[in-house]
Amino acid sequence: MRIAVDAMGGDNAPQAIVEGSIRAAKEFKDITIVLYGKQHMIQKYINEELENIEIVHTDEKIESEDDPVRSIRRKKQASMVMAARSVKEQENDALFSAGNTGALLASGTLIIGRVKGIDRPGLLATMPVMADKQDAFNLLDVGANADSKPNNINQYATLGTYYAKFVRGIDNPRVGLLNNGTEENKGNEVTKEAYKLLKENDAVNFIGNVEARELLNGIADVVVTDGFTGNAVLKTIEGTALSMVKLIKESIMNNGLKAKMGGLLLKDSLSNLKDVLDYSKHGGAVLLGLKAPVVKTHGSATSEPVYQTLKQIREMLSSHVVEDLVKYYEGENIEEKE
Amino acid sequence: MRIAVDAMGGDNAPQAIVEGSIRAAKEFKDITIVLYGKQHMIQKYINEELENIEIVHTDEKIESEDDPVRSIRRKKQASMVMAARSVKEQENDALFSAGNTGALLASGTLIIGRVKGIDRPGLLATMPVMADKQDAFNLLDVGANADSKPNNINQYATLGTYYAKFVRGIDNPRVGLLNNGTEENKGNEVTKEAYKLLKENDAVNFIGNVEARELLNGIADVVVTDGFTGNAVLKTIEGTALSMVKLIKESIMNNGLKAKMGGLLLKDSLSNLKDVLDYSKHGGAVLLGLKAPVVKTHGSATSEPVYQTLKQIREMLSSHVVEDLVKYYEGENIEEKE
Repeated sequence: MRIAVDAMGGDNAPQAIVEGSIRAAKEFKDITIVLYGKQHMIQKYINEELENIEIVHTDEKIESEDDPVRSIRRKKQASMVMAARSVKEQENDALFSAGNTGALLASGTLIIGRVKGIDRPGLLATMPVMADKQDAFNLLDVGANADSKPNNINQYATLGTYYAKFVRGIDNPRVGLLNNGTEENKGNEVTKEAYKLLKENDAVNFIGNVEARELLNGIADVVVTDGFTGNAVLKTIEGTALSMVKLIKESIMNNGLKAKMGGLLLKDSLSNLKDVLDYSKHGGAVLLGLKAPVVKTHGSATSEPVYQTLKQIREMLSSHVVEDLVKYYEGENIEEKE
Repeated sequence: MRIAVDAMGGDNAPQAIVEGSIRAAKEFKDITIVLYGKQHMIQKYINEELENIEIVHTDEKIESEDDPVRSIRRKKQASMVMAARSVKEQENDALFSAGNTGALLASGTLIIGRVKGIDRPGLLATMPVMADKQDAFNLLDVGANADSKPNNINQYATLGTYYAKFVRGIDNPRVGLLNNGTEENKGNEVTKEAYKLLKENDAVNFIGNVEARELLNGIADVVVTDGFTGNAVLKTIEGTALSMVKLIKESIMNNGLKAKMGGLLLKDSLSNLKDVLDYSKHGGAVLLGLKAPVVKTHGSATSEPVYQTLKQIREMLSSHVVEDLVKYYEGENIEEKE
């Protein structure tokens, strides 16, 4: 299993990318990590000989403010573009980047290419659940398509089901449609139409509409929505959680000695809380519906999320989730479709 | 100032509604509260003579599972419908309910009626901000229209500006458009078009796109979005905040004596936290764009949020925000529009 890594993408590149890669390479001998980027900058963070780390030198890189489609067309030697092309040409099996999200989505769609039968790939995030028995749920699309159509949402459900089954090991993942009420007739034009398609989708265990209030209670294993709403919900969860953690800290610091002592005694409990909230342990956001795994981690990622994301890619590759999706869309379904 | 109150709507009706009304009537001698509902059930919770509380007996009520439009047409004697009609007929000045949200929206739009020039009323919520200097922001539409058009969003901005100015006393409210990125060219079809309209809207201090991650940091005084996304964002904030409070409590209870002692010492600080999060102190959700204030509070509201919402309605009435909106849309603007 060979993972093409854009070593130059993200705020902490290449250091965090290289360090996370080394940790993954040491722990998983069955993967080879190919780092794309400036040779001497990468080399600076590698102090030992590792058989399963390779470097491909490239001079250019995509900047975070670059226009996605234009930059991947013009900067043919950029680390992200070279890494994507290596996957397209089957030299490597998956693509990782912490760089420009738009450019990565464009690289995935335009260079690596969609699974035949998928109209729009969807960006899948794994989010924490704050309940017993279940530790996470998948939300998609969190931003690949700002204007998702009902059929796109229906396909996200299939993609998410495969991911939850193959990578998270959930037997019969419950799929919910994010909506403004639980009754069947609720929603906007897009969700009402998507509901009908989901009810007929045999590949999916559709449990109906779910409301945003219930997401962190584990109402479903996979939640599908259009890319605009999904993006807003993802960022609202992040923003609310961060604001609350800040507020708790402030109220411990600003309420005198008693509160400070209480804060000290609660230190372990509160760090447990942080642990639950830290969804980087589930890896990065996966662009699903492509011919190979393409995974994005936060631009601000340190070596830990980089490592977790590489581990996640390894799980995607060993589970053959993408091959099975291709089989479903291009193979078994071919008679029905043609 | 006369407020028509649907005494039968909500999980705790009529008790919580009546108790909240009594408190408001005692505190504010300049308002008269007219309770619509079953006389003997209401009377049970009134143990004293109050000059500014009146009761109008009605036998019917709208149930929470009733179809909104059908029920308000058929149940002509329902407490909510009678209360709405009294506002339409200018016997009373504002409508309050904790009952069926859809039916209240329909009562407002179909019985009380829109301000001329407003295509779709928007539902405005006041949400807590977890930052210094600013204690809240207004979000709309949080669910009156599942398919808001760019022009609706532009009108929400005007409506929200008037509310923030008149009711919250903010001089020049900063209005942001909720979007999936801050750059001008970001968004889906609706937000891209809405952005253009907002830039040209002279009634509004438009500060550009804002992301959901920044809402609770006080990025804007008024945030506008379509009713589907607004509903999802509102419920995501509520759900995330509730889940985190639950998680903190559990981690205090399940981490031994040390954590429990810490929790005790932090009791005051954590109840401060609850106070910041409790946005019922800002009142209920206002359906703006109608000829009179129509305000909804949570179905599960106790007497405290009922009281807060009546106080909010009093502020809306004394500030003449609705009259000024009518002037703006029907008066000053009439030359441009015709």
